Amino acid sequence: MSKGNINVAVIGASGYTGQELLRLLVMHPDVNLAAVTSRKEAGRPLTDIYPRLRNAKGIEGLTFSMPEVELLVAAGVETAFLALPHGVASEYAIALLEKGIRVIDLSADFRLRSSAVYEEFYGAAHPAPHLLDEAVYGLPEVYREEIRKAKLVASPGCYPTSILVPLVPLLKAGLVSPEGISVSSLSGSSGAGKKADLSLLFPEVNESLRAYGAPKHRHLSEIEQEMSIASGKETRISFVPHLMPITAGIASTIFCNPVAGLSTAQVEETFRDFYVDSPFVRVLGEGVFPDTKNVVRTNFVDIGWVFDKRTEKLILCSAEDNLGKGAGGQAIQSLNVMHGLEESTGLMNF
Amino acid sequence: MSKGNINVAVIGASGYTGQELLRLLVMHPDVNLAAVTSRKEAGRPLTDIYPRLRNAKGIEGLTFSMPEVELLVAAGVETAFLALPHGVASEYAIALLEKGIRVIDLSADFRLRSSAVYEEFYGAAHPAPHLLDEAVYGLPEVYREEIRKAKLVASPGCYPTSILVPLVPLLKAGLVSPEGISVSSLSGSSGAGKKADLSLLFPEVNESLRAYGAPKHRHLSEIEQEMSIASGKETRISFVPHLMPITAGIASTIFCNPVAGLSTAQVEETFRDFYVDSPFVRVLGEGVFPDTKNVVRTNFVDIGWVFDKRTEKLILCSAEDNLGKGAGGQAIQSLNVMHGLEESTGLMNF
Amino acid sequence: MSKGNINVAVIGASGYTGQELLRLLVMHPDVNLAAVTSRKEAGRPLTDIYPRLRNAKGIEGLTFSMPEVELLVAAGVETAFLALPHGVASEYAIALLEKGIRVIDLSADFRLRSSAVYEEFYGAAHPAPHLLDEAVYGLPEVYREEIRKAKLVASPGCYPTSILVPLVPLLKAGLVSPEGISVSSLSGSSGAGKKADLSLLFPEVNESLRAYGAPKHRHLSEIEQEMSIASGKETRISFVPHLMPITAGIASTIFCNPVAGLSTAQVEETFRDFYVDSPFVRVLGEGVFPDTKNVVRTNFVDIGWVFDKRTEKLILCSAEDNLGKGAGGQAIQSLNVMHGLEESTGLMNF
Amino acid sequence: MSKGNINVAVIGASGYTGQELLRLLVMHPDVNLAAVTSRKEAGRPLTDIYPRLRNAKGIEGLTFSMPEVELLVAAGVETAFLALPHGVASEYAIALLEKGIRVIDLSADFRLRSSAVYEEFYGAAHPAPHLLDEAVYGLPEVYREEIRKAKLVASPGCYPTSILVPLVPLLKAGLVSPEGISVSSLSGSSGAGKKADLSLLFPEVNESLRAYGAPKHRHLSEIEQEMSIASGKETRISFVPHLMPITAGIASTIFCNPVAGLSTAQVEETFRDFYVDSPFVRVLGEGVFPDTKNVVRTNFVDIGWVFDKRTEKLILCSAEDNLGKGAGGQAIQSLNVMHGLEESTGLMNF
Repeated sequence: MSKGNINVAVIGASGYTGQELLRLLVMHPDVNLAAVTSRKEAGRPLTDIYPRLRNAKGIEGLTFSMPEVELLVAAGVETAFLALPHGVASEYAIALLEKGIRVIDLSADFRLRSSAVYEEFYGAAHPAPHLLDEAVYGLPEVYREEIRKAKLVASPGCYPTSILVPLVPLLKAGLVSPEGISVSSLSGSSGAGKKADLSLLFPEVNESLRAYGAPKHRHLSEIEQEMSIASGKETRISFVPHLMPITAGIASTIFCNPVAGLSTAQVEETFRDFYVDSPFVRVLGEGVFPDTKNVVRTNFVDIGWVFDKRTEKLILCSAEDNLGKGAGGQAIQSLNVMHGLEESTGLMNF
Repeated sequence: MSKGNINVAVIGASGYTGQELLRLLVMHPDVNLAAVTSRKEAGRPLTDIYPRLRNAKGIEGLTFSMPEVELLVAAGVETAFLALPHGVASEYAIALLEKGIRVIDLSADFRLRSSAVYEEFYGAAHPAPHLLDEAVYGLPEVYREEIRKAKLVASPGCYPTSILVPLVPLLKAGLVSPEGISVSSLSGSSGAGKKADLSLLFPEVNESLRAYGAPKHRHLSEIEQEMSIASGKETRISFVPHLMPITAGIASTIFCNPVAGLSTAQVEETFRDFYVDSPFVRVLGEGVFPDTKNVVRTNFVDIGWVFDKRTEKLILCSAEDNLGKGAGGQAIQSLNVMHGLEESTGLMNF
Repeated sequence: MSKGNINVAVIGASGYTGQELLRLLVMHPDVNLAAVTSRKEAGRPLTDIYPRLRNAKGIEGLTFSMPEVELLVAAGVETAFLALPHGVASEYAIALLEKGIRVIDLSADFRLRSSAVYEEFYGAAHPAPHLLDEAVYGLPEVYREEIRKAKLVASPGCYPTSILVPLVPLLKAGLVSPEGISVSSLSGSSGAGKKADLSLLFPEVNESLRAYGAPKHRHLSEIEQEMSIASGKETRISFVPHLMPITAGIASTIFCNPVAGLSTAQVEETFRDFYVDSPFVRVLGEGVFPDTKNVVRTNFVDIGWVFDKRTEKLILCSAEDNLGKGAGGQAIQSLNVMHGLEESTGLMNF
Repeated sequence: MSKGNINVAVIGASGYTGQELLRLLVMHPDVNLAAVTSRKEAGRPLTDIYPRLRNAKGIEGLTFSMPEVELLVAAGVETAFLALPHGVASEYAIALLEKGIRVIDLSADFRLRSSAVYEEFYGAAHPAPHLLDEAVYGLPEVYREEIRKAKLVASPGCYPTSILVPLVPLLKAGLVSPEGISVSSLSGSSGAGKKADLSLLFPEVNESLRAYGAPKHRHLSEIEQEMSIASGKETRISFVPHLMPITAGIASTIFCNPVAGLSTAQVEETFRDFYVDSPFVRVLGEGVFPDTKNVVRTNFVDIGWVFDKRTEKLILCSAEDNLGKGAGGQAIQSLNVMHGLEESTGLMNF
């Protein structure tokens, strides 16, 4: 179990996010999986639950342990990934931070700056409001420097990543209006989680396309928070997520209003400048539409766009892997930044 | 071959639209398939190309014939379906109409009232502009009376049907603004046609979601024509079609601006009134999102909606089968209307 | 609710088999749905659970009722379909038969002639052994005359139908040996039932192919019973079922040993003679491989075969819809036979 | 373009095999892509055809070149992968070998030891029979030492790998009879190649399962050759391949006759001994069925088995990625062996 140098733990590893985190971590050259916890699967070998990972270094012989903080301390864990439901994650975050263990939380618990907005969208009082100031929104393309110094990173949701990556640079530069933005997003079925829910059975999702969660999906709260920061004013969008019959992948199509006279060259230059040091954003160009199949199992977000001159709209399209750049890969990207590694370490997969 | 009473022909039956037309026609109680043509497959038994139809009454023993008008006349054809590429369809329409055979054209040739718009969107002069006045847009929910008397019906495209059915009643009633409408549509892969194109192979479409054809997809021309008629003013929309990994089905998500104070009760009442005599429009209600899997292989269009109070948008969602209500089924619905049959004859499939 | 003449009930209608039964029954011209029961959904409108069936005659306005025999008697039910788990079905069968209601049971409870074999394969004593003699195995292609007079029909399993239809005629005619038969079958995911089971979620089934249940799947018991009857001697086969990423459909590939000198003409003639009055068996011929997509949502079983001269094997391939001919459609076929209707009534769908 | 040390070329890189080879090579730490050829795409950037590979080191800026041997020599190519159709590959092999460039051929041209068998199965005289003696069958698990010294490696077909890996150890050890073996295999649709063929369009493959190519698929020739070598006697099998609706993956289910008294412990021990130094064979154990989704995009072959005591059959199941271990990954495994690298270099992906 001494593959790499950084001792990490994955807390709550029995869902799809935990699964993808583990898949990526076993291929990471500088990471040692010191502990993997699951209350439900405690004592079982990891490869029983994740047969895909059989023969992986550092995972053969490893069993799920109980999520006890003392055990993590004893195992020398430096950084812990939380792949837990919202509300539950914060409990662990508090305890781990007290022990000096850095936390990368993949739940929604620390993504919002306002506990009031949390309560509005998640229907319960925030469990640890005192940590909201400390938490850093883990989108390295925007908050790289803050992540470098963070003790607590709130890794973004899958939909937010796919929408913020194309919009933030344009909003920051004042090239599109924060008013009147409409977004239609489509997610692969793993985005709904590994839940024993009849509506997620294969015959229910296969040959099916349906909207859900509109008009007030929970991810809207963090999307609008980050868009408001970027644009400098309170920003509201219309957002319709859909479930589509693919395992992984998110595609977002964004209708927005460009400033008068905006050229495609300016859009392209804005993206290239903003993402010059970001290896995982691929700017495809005008008229080149991203395809989820080109980003699944990678850490990339692909962006394309078209101008609709007839209606004076700018239409942005993005694609990412909801479990990769939208969850596990992005969290590891933060890990790399936090530990001073090259940002793409272990993530340059194709 | 004397199953029913109405002698019909399908001209150009080797694509997916022709296939679905035939599938529906063999189950239609009042139709006799007098001729099925395909230049490419002439002489071959239909069941060689469509093994699904083996054992169907009226199709066993039938062979593809050449698309020659004399043969159709000799076979006593009363009404012919044209499942041909645009540009080619009009040639047959002219010849058939001259012989007194009524035509239901599934191509784009007669859907537009303006030959200039045709030229703008299809890149060639209209091949038979003198017939544009005579042609009726074959959306029975809107043009039922005109279809009843028509000699030439231009059956609508698949995307237009999915967008016009939810929008026309609201535009007619002045309940939504014709300004600022954005539409994200998703089509199953059969919508791209039965073409030997590498980008349509299974590994290219499976686990893939991609936009295409924006911002000026050909179907936009008829969508805007019909929306302009409904709203009473020149209407332009932003429209992004996407290809999704299902065989059949179209889902459209429409962002539009309601008039101030519009209530969900008004929306529902407007739909119910408008479609009171339309058996194939199912009004699901507010917050009930249609699912393509519930309409595939049926002739229904399902409609649901939500109000997004935070942005003052009305979001409409629809689902239909692109080959059914979006093509073959709709054409047969026109046939029923033209021949005085009950509109749902042979189409009440689940 | 007076669409047809025969009052039927569906008992236990909340699974995939019940769903397909209902879908077919609403299109059946001579059936009236007098009652549809589901303990779990009692009181709810059917279209809440089956939105696909909205607007169907006889189903709009219908609610699930409790499965109480008195209610069924009061509703004038003549024949009841049982879509219940094995073990539970027999309880209802006893009670219904006592009231003079004929029963078509889609569970395994009455398929086996021997209660000992039932106990061996289902792990419990048979709940109603006194009815085993009375029950008729509901494969109309083999037991048409017995079904005509039956009070209790045990409708066959999905795998058995796909294996028995190609094998029974050849075994009866002594053209293939009952020794050394190996069968690889593949089932769409609806065959696993509508169960909240993590292994049946979309991401688990999609892009996946796996064997399961071998070497002693429960369906083996009825397959071997019927093969033994056909061959006239105790017959054992090797049988490996697999789960495949399609919603519906079963494909079986059967390796068997032909008698010396068997010709393809003899095979074809044997099939054509045996199935001369069976509208749902389509004999495709030598070298023509059936495809599940051509039989899904139909009641057909398609059969093809090849001789492998190098190994002296005869290879049979079949395809059917596991929910259609493999479950709901076949049960309705028995209903038609029992009630003196044309066997294909309401089932000639394409 | 100086990522690694070994200069390699991929000849004929426009199909699915070429695509997977490139995907794996860009992640290989010791390889430099010196040339990638495609007659059809010459002059175009690789990322135009393979947008998934954008941003990969060594591929950005690279264009397809013409397949000219002089160019490859000038580029310093040490080893060339041929991803060409059979018949064409041998021409290049001859020319490259003359220039001292080692060849790993992914076509069928050098897999058979007998030019007569080649002619029987491929329908043409062998184009370079003088090289058959020199060629090594590139299954490292069986021919590791021969590959180490080879100048010309014939990388096995996808079906053969999935069948030989489970069978060769048992045949060699005399634990199963070479008589009476029947195999049902299922391949993802990429196995049919990137061909503009109507039968491979998404709507034709989706929701479809069909056998094809039986009883004499071309891969049978190499399967039987290697089984005959392993068993020490002329071996013939029955083999039925099927096309299934997944992008990549092969599952094989093998019915065979064990020697009397064979125990599961012996089977397991035989596999573990035979594959003790083979990192890519995962022996799952009795009753554990492999699943294609656990091996896709990996280089593993997973093996499980059950004894069917009732019929005295041993049933073996295997799963692999047809493009990975079944094609590109296996070829790179040979490259690693030939160049003295650790066999799993660049291939330990999950």
